[in-house]
Amino acid sequence: MIGLLVDWGCDGSCWLDSHLTLLMLRLILCLCLSVSDIGLIVFRLGLRRMSNVGNSSNILWHKCSVEKADREQLLRQKGCVIWVTGLSGSGKSTLACALARGLHARGKLTYILDGDNVRHGLNSDLSFKAEDRAENIRRMGEVAKLFADAGVICIASLISPYRKDRELCRSLLKEGEFIEVFMDVPLSICESRDPKGLYKLARAGKIRGFTGIDDPYEPPLSCEIVLEQKDGSCASPDRLAGRVISYLEEKGYLSPA
Amino acid sequence: MIGLLVDWGCDGSCWLDSHLTLLMLRLILCLCLSVSDIGLIVFRLGLRRMSNVGNSSNILWHKCSVEKADREQLLRQKGCVIWVTGLSGSGKSTLACALARGLHARGKLTYILDGDNVRHGLNSDLSFKAEDRAENIRRMGEVAKLFADAGVICIASLISPYRKDRELCRSLLKEGEFIEVFMDVPLSICESRDPKGLYKLARAGKIRGFTGIDDPYEPPLSCEIVLEQKDGSCASPDRLAGRVISYLEEKGYLSPA
Repeated sequence: MIGLLVDWGCDGSCWLDSHLTLLMLRLILCLCLSVSDIGLIVFRLGLRRMSNVGNSSNILWHKCSVEKADREQLLRQKGCVIWVTGLSGSGKSTLACALARGLHARGKLTYILDGDNVRHGLNSDLSFKAEDRAENIRRMGEVAKLFADAGVICIASLISPYRKDRELCRSLLKEGEFIEVFMDVPLSICESRDPKGLYKLARAGKIRGFTGIDDPYEPPLSCEIVLEQKDGSCASPDRLAGRVISYLEEKGYLSPA
Repeated sequence: MIGLLVDWGCDGSCWLDSHLTLLMLRLILCLCLSVSDIGLIVFRLGLRRMSNVGNSSNILWHKCSVEKADREQLLRQKGCVIWVTGLSGSGKSTLACALARGLHARGKLTYILDGDNVRHGLNSDLSFKAEDRAENIRRMGEVAKLFADAGVICIASLISPYRKDRELCRSLLKEGEFIEVFMDVPLSICESRDPKGLYKLARAGKIRGFTGIDDPYEPPLSCEIVLEQKDGSCASPDRLAGRVISYLEEKGYLSPA
């Protein structure tokens, strides 16, 4: 009740049917609680937090009564981010699709954030310059975090070649909410696939700063899942997705919180 | 099948157990379909679209077999954006919370994108300069679109004072996916509430370009829902949320696609 009063503002003429009711409530509050008690309650409810963040000032954090755990209960799953990293042509998007299919078949809600797709919308203002690439990954991480908070199993699929960018995204989430999946496929296989014809362009010098050719890919030093694909030991996308799904099952992501 | 072949790339050594199977498939394809047929199928499947968007080039649209309609079926609701606009202090966040509670009680998945909250993360790099404000709203619109695509009822709550910015966000979505809710509360009431103390700062000249004080608010000319709150005719947040929920029920948003 106190929360609602604070949240709704101090107009007084509104949402309570009359001034009288409000006055009575205030009276009861004053009789029952000392000033320090009220302060403590407001503090403990943690309803509001005025702060300056980055370039934004005077912004308040609004907390709501429907929380992540409630949404997870509804969905019977745990919201998390499955971050699929690897070279162009390593099969990230294909794995993401197979994973979405496999989880959907189990009645789980997933959403794929594909690096290329998000560049059609949210990140359409970004180029492939170094700073824009970092910003591209930061925004993907922030959006993935929102999806995980919504209770969704968010599958983020993008090259994300640098460790520090991936670590930044991991740091946005709570322990266990970020599951890094490394598509460990040798450059030679990726280049022979070249599904978008980009390796050919990069080798011809028509694309600069292409990961694997003239820009490095930093493989994860320690990640949750490594999906190796070497010559002669390739698995189907569904089999690879199955490995991720088994991990999710074992760790309890596919049951309510 | 063709889709998978295209999607997985042209490596050939991978995911099909042997070269032989792939060769046989190619042979069958060639025997059964003329070149124009294959072209038509690839075109109709719309699997890939290489394009340049804004500053991004060489990006491909990945389509996946789990689509919006599938997620909507799972959630038994239709993904959409409820865009709550109005002055600071008009009760946007309170309505958003009441709406989330009411819909959650009906077993519906919602997610609140609050202007202030998103400025803590995704939009923390943006200031309150005119161009950054527009960018703030554009990003909110793009993220809301992703949530609607995920099948979620996304409640976006932010002042969004200019018609052109709101119209841009509406244009991102399909017909019927954008539900604009105008909190029609007179400035005098908002200012008397002043829940964040910002009107006081704006009147004292400590905040410049504050909507309603020295920057205009352009009310919607035609929006889906107007929630009026004038002196003597105020409703509780739950009652206001009830009006939005009734709208959603009537229009079929709370049933599967």
